[in-house]
Amino acid sequence: MNLMKHSFASDNNSGIHPNILKAIEEANEGHCFAYGSDPLTERGKQALKNVFGDDIETFFVFNGTGANVLAVKSLVRSWQSVLCAETSHLNEDECGAAEMAVGCKLIPLPVTNGKISIESIAAHLTWLDDEHRSQPRLVSITQPTEFGTLYTPEEIKAIADFCHQHHLLLHIDGARIANAATALSLSLRACTRDLGVDVLSFGGTKNGMLMGEAVLFFQPNLTSETKYFRKQNMQLFSKMRFVGAQFESYLQHNLWHQNASHANRMAALLFEQICDIEGIQFPFPVQANAVFAILPLPAIEVLQERFPFYVFNESTNLVRWMCSYNTTEADVLDFAATIRQTMLKF
Amino acid sequence: MNLMKHSFASDNNSGIHPNILKAIEEANEGHCFAYGSDPLTERGKQALKNVFGDDIETFFVFNGTGANVLAVKSLVRSWQSVLCAETSHLNEDECGAAEMAVGCKLIPLPVTNGKISIESIAAHLTWLDDEHRSQPRLVSITQPTEFGTLYTPEEIKAIADFCHQHHLLLHIDGARIANAATALSLSLRACTRDLGVDVLSFGGTKNGMLMGEAVLFFQPNLTSETKYFRKQNMQLFSKMRFVGAQFESYLQHNLWHQNASHANRMAALLFEQICDIEGIQFPFPVQANAVFAILPLPAIEVLQERFPFYVFNESTNLVRWMCSYNTTEADVLDFAATIRQTMLKF
Amino acid sequence: MNLMKHSFASDNNSGIHPNILKAIEEANEGHCFAYGSDPLTERGKQALKNVFGDDIETFFVFNGTGANVLAVKSLVRSWQSVLCAETSHLNEDECGAAEMAVGCKLIPLPVTNGKISIESIAAHLTWLDDEHRSQPRLVSITQPTEFGTLYTPEEIKAIADFCHQHHLLLHIDGARIANAATALSLSLRACTRDLGVDVLSFGGTKNGMLMGEAVLFFQPNLTSETKYFRKQNMQLFSKMRFVGAQFESYLQHNLWHQNASHANRMAALLFEQICDIEGIQFPFPVQANAVFAILPLPAIEVLQERFPFYVFNESTNLVRWMCSYNTTEADVLDFAATIRQTMLKF
Amino acid sequence: MNLMKHSFASDNNSGIHPNILKAIEEANEGHCFAYGSDPLTERGKQALKNVFGDDIETFFVFNGTGANVLAVKSLVRSWQSVLCAETSHLNEDECGAAEMAVGCKLIPLPVTNGKISIESIAAHLTWLDDEHRSQPRLVSITQPTEFGTLYTPEEIKAIADFCHQHHLLLHIDGARIANAATALSLSLRACTRDLGVDVLSFGGTKNGMLMGEAVLFFQPNLTSETKYFRKQNMQLFSKMRFVGAQFESYLQHNLWHQNASHANRMAALLFEQICDIEGIQFPFPVQANAVFAILPLPAIEVLQERFPFYVFNESTNLVRWMCSYNTTEADVLDFAATIRQTMLKF
Repeated sequence: MNLMKHSFASDNNSGIHPNILKAIEEANEGHCFAYGSDPLTERGKQALKNVFGDDIETFFVFNGTGANVLAVKSLVRSWQSVLCAETSHLNEDECGAAEMAVGCKLIPLPVTNGKISIESIAAHLTWLDDEHRSQPRLVSITQPTEFGTLYTPEEIKAIADFCHQHHLLLHIDGARIANAATALSLSLRACTRDLGVDVLSFGGTKNGMLMGEAVLFFQPNLTSETKYFRKQNMQLFSKMRFVGAQFESYLQHNLWHQNASHANRMAALLFEQICDIEGIQFPFPVQANAVFAILPLPAIEVLQERFPFYVFNESTNLVRWMCSYNTTEADVLDFAATIRQTMLKF
Repeated sequence: MNLMKHSFASDNNSGIHPNILKAIEEANEGHCFAYGSDPLTERGKQALKNVFGDDIETFFVFNGTGANVLAVKSLVRSWQSVLCAETSHLNEDECGAAEMAVGCKLIPLPVTNGKISIESIAAHLTWLDDEHRSQPRLVSITQPTEFGTLYTPEEIKAIADFCHQHHLLLHIDGARIANAATALSLSLRACTRDLGVDVLSFGGTKNGMLMGEAVLFFQPNLTSETKYFRKQNMQLFSKMRFVGAQFESYLQHNLWHQNASHANRMAALLFEQICDIEGIQFPFPVQANAVFAILPLPAIEVLQERFPFYVFNESTNLVRWMCSYNTTEADVLDFAATIRQTMLKF
Repeated sequence: MNLMKHSFASDNNSGIHPNILKAIEEANEGHCFAYGSDPLTERGKQALKNVFGDDIETFFVFNGTGANVLAVKSLVRSWQSVLCAETSHLNEDECGAAEMAVGCKLIPLPVTNGKISIESIAAHLTWLDDEHRSQPRLVSITQPTEFGTLYTPEEIKAIADFCHQHHLLLHIDGARIANAATALSLSLRACTRDLGVDVLSFGGTKNGMLMGEAVLFFQPNLTSETKYFRKQNMQLFSKMRFVGAQFESYLQHNLWHQNASHANRMAALLFEQICDIEGIQFPFPVQANAVFAILPLPAIEVLQERFPFYVFNESTNLVRWMCSYNTTEADVLDFAATIRQTMLKF
Repeated sequence: MNLMKHSFASDNNSGIHPNILKAIEEANEGHCFAYGSDPLTERGKQALKNVFGDDIETFFVFNGTGANVLAVKSLVRSWQSVLCAETSHLNEDECGAAEMAVGCKLIPLPVTNGKISIESIAAHLTWLDDEHRSQPRLVSITQPTEFGTLYTPEEIKAIADFCHQHHLLLHIDGARIANAATALSLSLRACTRDLGVDVLSFGGTKNGMLMGEAVLFFQPNLTSETKYFRKQNMQLFSKMRFVGAQFESYLQHNLWHQNASHANRMAALLFEQICDIEGIQFPFPVQANAVFAILPLPAIEVLQERFPFYVFNESTNLVRWMCSYNTTEADVLDFAATIRQTMLKF
């Protein structure tokens, strides 16, 4: 196979967790109706209801971009806008998918430690009802943020309350929500729905699943069009049972928690091992499964020869090191030692 | 699990072929770069090059709608139109995805046995260069057609030649192209690229794969934007190695051929077993893996209680019976016997 | 100036009616708020209310395509479809504007004398609630049709009733609705709203106005987004007072009626003068201000040298001769005589 | 008529300049072909060629939003982005029209005195060729800016050069370009095309025309699709001769210059009359026909009772006072005196 053994480039460089793979194998029995009209899809949805509440609406899609865009398309019209962190995946890493598929405006908000503030939302609540202006409708935050930091539950609750006071809805891009819940010692529900979040892109791919994400709607009356939008957005999977089966397995025996907490621990370990190295700066607190660091370009280049990772900002030499559910302690210690050794030369 | 044992509703009611599942398992080793920058994706692409020629461009996507829309978006601008069978999947079964994602017009053409004619294409080549009219750019045909019939190679060649004479491109929706190639005793290349086809949606999901389709471009200079469109269309899979591995396996040891020819044989067997039953009409020749029939509504309802299948046209009582790679002879004989028995009562 | 004196190419080849020009001049006094917040816009809207009822919603736009697309966008979502005549302006002459701006599907229906039938609508009311299919939402008809023919009031009423029984809305493209009302000896309201029409593109440009059309909504609760869509569709005119003033003038002293009945009379005169000429066929009844004829290509070419007009169908030699509010009797007689003379040679 | 006599709300609160109105009247003779195939449209285009060069491509549209969006749509694909001032009309005042009609991303850049910097452009030229990122393609600046300030010719030239070095194109939103040219004592060409600008939205409505804007392309090979996009964007005017005639008149006898320099003079006069009033701040230099001021809210409210104008930023009490081609000296002196008087009370 000749695949790499260790990657700190992204948690999606990992493969499928054995439990998940087993669930796929077990789901591969006999025929069933396509497009979600099957018992395994139903069981996957039920597993999500057991976690988030019986009155949620669940839509399985293929990937994270598909989840975010389906959430936006269900809630936002072309003349409305989405307020999101300028650094958010939705804004920066989806090649304008939301603009293309919804036709709406994305308004990038400035961030501190990857997080937006209520003030930055409020600043755009002007010219309401004015047809010249795209009208704010949805606030989207990422938890943990793209910089591996966490909103506190109180911060999310405050944003949600502010949103609802101003006729806005709140979406969480939860591609790594498991890492957040684990880090915050909260249940998946407690760190999302219970804080007032209206819609969640619930990711699994980065935490052990093959593929498949779920868009979860926590408020009624938001999904009258969603099934059509999912199809139109090319996100309706014919053999959906294999996503249902994965989600059931993912939520069983706390697999999500076990995987995420391992990844978080590995990031903490990495940080612990290297935080004292001279010449490396850590611009963000390490709160989930990512370590961000600033180090000299020549050091980066030496390190990249042995370990894959991305430079996030070429002008500041900001790099990102991600840990995943199957990053091993040995991987981390090896990487940390290599960093230390490399930094000696610069 | 409690899934159904036999379905004639669609070939996508089947699961994953054991070889394919094994390929997924074997691909699940170690880390690798995401989004297609990995050796398994490369190997999947190479397997396709081995079949279709070294100079093709391949883009893996999630599903058939994703493949068709990516093909259209790569070739057609919003002010241009796609000429396609009024009964085509692109036109009727994708919830207007092409209109949404490309903004272009689809012009439905009348069909005979599911096939469009050169005359029907030619009829729309008027008002060229006139800005009031959407300008024809792409002809899309389905092989085998949505009614399980086949264009002859000569018919496709003639359409391709006509297209190229008139500055049009030709796309094949090949969700079941394996069934066509097998039925025509042609290689995959001989029944597509060698006939002048410019772009192919090459499907695998309906013939034993878990998921994953490939858009194959046979002409140079058509794909300068395709990678961006794939991302924007929410069709870029992070763990793409698992699609590459499936395609490699699908093309190895002629698995595609073995699966498709089995499905075709089962449809032929079904037709053979029931073609003499009084009261059933067969409006289309059985040429691939589908049998279309017209029978009394009460008979349909009785049959549907035991075997899942779709009524295609409620006003004419047209039904579709699909066979898949793992439909068994016993399934077919059981179904045929039930049909015969049922028809005795009506 | 060297403009042509007589054109039978289209009624929009005519200029501005003197009354309308005068209204523009009179509106050119002082300053007023832009974008419709001015007394002249209000008076234009009131004039329309006086005609159609006090409870209508009016949106002024620039042109006919802008009116049709705004109507569609207000009523139809991207996953829904519009059923319209395959020969309709919306379908054939707007370069796919509706698909681009709404992302929805247009389903072309076959026509007889330019008119669609209830049967052709009903044929598409299948697979309702099925996410694979674009869901029918709006029926759009043109009155008079693109072939200068008229739906009877009974026909429109029947279509409207059918629509409402099936949760569809009915739109009339009324670019020439004045010609229809006049021909039917009905008020503008009696031939639209009173028959059950939900939305009307009310045209003025082809009947003496400089520019400006109105989208009239006859049902409540359809326009909550329309003001935003108008702006987003680039149809919000800053100096809107000049459209308001035109509409007021257009509806004053029955100018619309006077202009339209003149145009209709000229078409009737033209037909009367040439209906007995051997070698010319008239495929459609002459019911408004258009005469359609089929004649030999050489004759067409000779005639086009002296009088501008369009060949509508090059394969059948179908031509269209339009009369406008300022086509003179002398124009018509001159043209008719030339036709007669020309036909002698072929 | 009862329209307001004096408005400082916007220059589009003014009506039609007498010369322009006369040109419309004179154009109203006889018939001519619609949609721009007429001698008056040709003459309007020729007048623009006389100003900007014989090799430009001109597309007349209805309004400024239509011009900007047509420019963007001609140059930018859905996977590309437009870099523009966060305060630009394109970004803030067109209700997301560009996102809707092009599907692309707009990236708002920070401004100083309404102007963007090369540094802010450069900051977005990262992740090039990366399919996850919308790829920068067009820089759009407004001259004069939305705050009535001017880029120097050197600044524009530097931005243009930077753009071309980085495969970007440069667009100017020139809704008020006449005011800029006049203020800079440059010809229209010298302050746009000669500085390296690729595309210009050339406005007339705010400077004495009834309606009608022109999109001018200064580079070859940019307009192969523009005529279709204009139609699809609902911007193709049937009676286009009346726009051609207006542009001819607007450029004749330097009407554009006379109007713009008057408006600029009136703004300068207003500023001169009030610049010493205590309690008013002027956050931007007065360089064209706008005066921006910050004053106490109670004073604003008193003033608005007598003179219409807009509060631009409610949280800072920033107001905008616009002068137009027919703002009179008496208007200005009256307004200035009222401001002075009012401010005495606060």
